[in-house]
Parts: sequence; structure tokens; C-alpha cells
Amino acid sequence: MTSPPPPILDEFGLIARHLAPLATHKGADGLRDDVAILAAGSFDGDLVINTDAVVSGVHFLETENPALIAERVLRVNLSDLAAKGAKPLGYQLTLALPSVVDDAWMASFAAGLRANQAAFNWSLLGGDTVRSPGPLTISVTAFGTVPHAKALRRGGAQIGDEIWVTGWIGDGALGLAIAKGHDLSLPTGIAAAAEQKFRLPQPRIAFGVALAESGLATASADVSDGLIADLGHIASASALGMAIEAASVPLSDAGRLMTERDAEWLPRLLTGGDDYEVIFTAPPLAAQQLAAMAEATRTPLCRIGHTIAGTEVVVTLPNGDALPMLTSGYTHF
Amino acid sequence: MTSPPPPILDEFGLIARHLAPLATHKGADGLRDDVAILAAGSFDGDLVINTDAVVSGVHFLETENPALIAERVLRVNLSDLAAKGAKPLGYQLTLALPSVVDDAWMASFAAGLRANQAAFNWSLLGGDTVRSPGPLTISVTAFGTVPHAKALRRGGAQIGDEIWVTGWIGDGALGLAIAKGHDLSLPTGIAAAAEQKFRLPQPRIAFGVALAESGLATASADVSDGLIADLGHIASASALGMAIEAASVPLSDAGRLMTERDAEWLPRLLTGGDDYEVIFTAPPLAAQQLAAMAEATRTPLCRIGHTIAGTEVVVTLPNGDALPMLTSGYTHF
Repeated sequence: MTSPPPPILDEFGLIARHLAPLATHKGADGLRDDVAILAAGSFDGDLVINTDAVVSGVHFLETENPALIAERVLRVNLSDLAAKGAKPLGYQLTLALPSVVDDAWMASFAAGLRANQAAFNWSLLGGDTVRSPGPLTISVTAFGTVPHAKALRRGGAQIGDEIWVTGWIGDGALGLAIAKGHDLSLPTGIAAAAEQKFRLPQPRIAFGVALAESGLATASADVSDGLIADLGHIASASALGMAIEAASVPLSDAGRLMTERDAEWLPRLLTGGDDYEVIFTAPPLAAQQLAAMAEATRTPLCRIGHTIAGTEVVVTLPNGDALPMLTSGYTHF
Repeated sequence: MTSPPPPILDEFGLIARHLAPLATHKGADGLRDDVAILAAGSFDGDLVINTDAVVSGVHFLETENPALIAERVLRVNLSDLAAKGAKPLGYQLTLALPSVVDDAWMASFAAGLRANQAAFNWSLLGGDTVRSPGPLTISVTAFGTVPHAKALRRGGAQIGDEIWVTGWIGDGALGLAIAKGHDLSLPTGIAAAAEQKFRLPQPRIAFGVALAESGLATASADVSDGLIADLGHIASASALGMAIEAASVPLSDAGRLMTERDAEWLPRLLTGGDDYEVIFTAPPLAAQQLAAMAEATRTPLCRIGHTIAGTEVVVTLPNGDALPMLTSGYTHF
């Protein structure tokens, strides 16, 4: 067992200065205790719990702005809550900090947490801060609430249901490439928008909450591993297949330009991950209500296919051919 | 951004083989979804939430048995639940895995989780598994339940309350030294017992649950940072001081032998941490009921001092002197 790195920061000082002011939920008790307490009757409905972790150099650039690292890890978790229809309540935060992290880094990181909490109306509840000789590792366990038994799950899609996706697909993969310094020869504004969507995903909370309350969706997930992989999770949990029309998948501006230039980009964008949109299934009769819900929550929404018998996710090109190399599962790990 | 290490394990296979069978709670849905759901009415009282993380090489030996790593990180979390009086319900698990982790490692780690779940009657609920180029990092967010408004907190101790501790102090620090290979010249059985208590702490769940239900305690915490530091947390949250009699602090067999040999060991054991006992305060009138509760739950229990005006934790030796170098706070970090 090696000794921990020298204590540039002390845990209690760090928590008191930067994190305690963010623990605004009553159950967090200003981080004065070592646990958070969600009192019976202090929240309504079912509690949805999601955990997503990120590692420096794997999930974000080592040089990333600490405020954006904070925003991104919370938004990745919020995206899961959105896909289940849960309203954000609070989160537990684990920080494994290398010795290069100093007070200025923590101040910026905390500013990112604060901005996110204001935007999504939730609170730090508690967590743990430890020293690590390795890369900065952040784990968030997020809590949301949903009316009892209304949470959207992966299982439950029925054959004949239509398949919907919010927003657009492609900026996850393209934004990552741009953030890594690849020159994709895209117009500056379009490249910047793709990079921004990658760095600061837009969890579809308002739409997800409305969708769960409506009872219209039969199954739902968010697009984190890639559109095809995440559709595959719904297909597998619902024991059915999916027929997707490639031409109906809403691509980002960057995605449209890249696929027009080189058709090889289409499968890459559909499997690329990190889009943090909501995909869900619903019976055809729900279409009009879904469109109204999308408009009310100002959420772009597209129908991209329908569920079928079988187990595969098949993407069909406009000429009727199946998009190659997309029938096997994609593994993000 | 560097590429993640090669996928020796794939996340979904790993989860399906080793972790899904542990997700026995209904809300975990066998890990078929990416979230856990605690349904309204599926648990009683308030929800107590605790997060504790461990890093290989910092909190446990890199060569440690994976089953014991799993047991220890869960027990460290259970110790916090015990100190709050919460009955274990379930936990979220984050694993940041270096490439040396293989299927055999995961099988042993999962066996440790399984043994712990059987012993403490709780369940894996969900989590996240990511690859890391750094040391194995594990974060657990643990959930327990306590009757409404009965959770024991750090704040609430009153001047004149007596201070109690379960079990014994010292095996945390001494067991760590022994596990690190230091020869303390202790009898084999006593050294082995200290090492075992360090590697496999005994969270005092039964006693903690009874204590919360009784309403007798005014404040409570577990001994993770060290007896003096954790008493300091109660003192600080309760805005009072503490007078501890050194001779009353229950030492482990190893601790007794070491302090008899060299008085310098006493302050080390009282600040050493990792004992995972419960410390709490209660009015003097509660003493008889507390003794009965300790007997009913087969928990060793000692009275070690009382609360006083002021802000300090003062440890007094049998000759009336204050134990030196113990009045300032100890920082585990």
C-alpha cells in the first residue's frame, strides 16, 4: 500500500468552501453530517436512481475546463433521468482527485455544479472525496422523482409501435472528434455547435417528464452508447426487433454535411454515442399527442421507424438496402 | 483524449454474468434497465444515503483478495448506515476498472458482494462500470431506511450527555500496519485478529437500528477518520466540547499490548481511523437501557466520557494530564 499523495487540499476545508454551499436540499443538511436523508413525504412518487461515472482522459479531455467537466457529468446523469421521465431531485458526488487538483480547479468545478443546479433545479445531497494517484474520476448517483408506476423503462415496447427520437443524432461522435482536434473541414459555426453539443449535452427533462406523465410511451432510453446500441437495449428488453429508416433519422447540421460528403459517416454517427437524446416507442395512435407535447416543451421530435418481430435493429437506406455492419451490437466499453 | 484500454471485458457481458444475479431487489429489475427505481410505498420511513469510495493502493492493498475488497467497501458504507440507525436496503456500485481486471477477478469480487448481501440482507440496485487507465476505484452509494425523523445525526448532543462507543478501538490502525507487512511483535493470534478487523470491519447494524428506534441517543457517528476526529465531528456539529477518559476507551487486544509496551501508541490508536465502531451521546438516565440494548444485540459497549462546554475534544490520562497533541483536529485526507 503506497502512501496517499500529499494533502494539498484537506477534505473538510474543500467541502466546506466549495461543496457545502451547493447542498441546498433540506436532506443534505448543508453537508454537516456524513449522510443525506430523504425524509418520507418530502418527495412525491417513485424514486429513480441513476449512476454514471467519468474518467479523465477516457470520457473527457485532461485539459477540459473544470466547470464543463462538472456540467457534463451531471447532464449525462440527467439524460438518464429524462429518458425515464423523472424530475431531478438531487445527487451524490464522488471525487477521486489526483494531486494536481488545487483550490482554483475546485472553485471552477463547483461553479459548473452550481450553474447546472440552477438550470435543472436540483441539489447536491452528499458524497465522498478521496485522493487518488490516478486520473481524476467522478461518479454521480442522481435521484429523480416520477409519479408512482409511471417511470418509462426499456422493456414494454409492443410490435407495431412507432419509434421516436428527440433532437438530433451525430454531434456526439462529431463533437468528440472536433474536441480531440480532428479537422473535419466543417464550417466554423457548424463545427462549434457540434463540439458544444458534445461538451454540454442537452438532457430532455421537460419532454421526458411530460412523456412519463402522459402514459403514451411503451418503452424509453437515452442515447448514450449510440443510437443503434440503445435501440438494441429497448429491443432486447422488449423482446422484439426494430426497423429504422435511415432517411428519417434527424442528423445534426454537422452530421448532414459529413454524410453528404461521405456515406461512410452514416453508420459512424448512428453508432457513435454521446448524443443524450431520448428514444422511445409509442403506439401509432399517440402520434398527434406526441407532436403537441414536443411543441409544448420546444423539443425537436422525429419518428424514425417501427418495432417488428425478431430481435434485430435493421436500418434501411432509401434504396431499400440494409445499412451494412449495423446488425450486431455496439459496445461502448 | 487517449483511447480507452483494450476491452478485455465487455461491460454488458460482465454485468450480465457477475452483477445481474446480485440485483435481487425488485427496484433493480435484474439490471435490465439503466436505472433503479424505489417505488413509493416499497420501503418504510426515511431514506438514509451514504457514499464512500476506495482507491487501490490508497485504501486497500493492490494485492488484496477481490472478495475482501468488495466486502470491505460495502462494510465501510454499512458502518455509516449503522451510525445513523438505518437498516440496509440496497446500493449503487461504480467500478472504474484498469485493464488488469479480468473475469476471474470479477468473479471473486462478485462473490464478496454476494456474501455481504447475504450477511446484511440487502441488494445491489444498479451502478456504472467504466474502464480506467488508473488504479481500481470503487464508489458505493448505500441506501438504508430508518423510522421517520428517527435517524441519528452528528448534531444534537447536549452538555452533560455521556459518550459511548461500541466494540473496541485500535485494530483499524494496527491492522493496517500488519496488513502492510510491519512486524509489531504481537502474538500471532492477536495480530491476525487485528488484521482481520481492519480488512473486514464489523458494522454495528443491529445495535444502530435499535439505538435509533429507542430514541435514546442525542447524536451519533461512526469511527472512520479516527475516534478523536469523529468525536470532533459530533462536537462541532453539536457546538460543544468533549471530555474523554483515556482509561475508559476500550482497546483491542492488540491495542492493549502495544500501549502497555509503549505509551506513544495510545494517541496513534485514538486518531488512527478505520475502526468502524459507533460513537454516540445520550443523557445519563439512558445508561441502563443502553446496557440492555447492547446485551440484546450482543454488542460490546463502553462509556468513555461526557460532553462539556467549549469546542475541544480533551482526552485525560489516569494521572489527570491531558493526552498531548490530540486537541487539534485530525485530517484523514
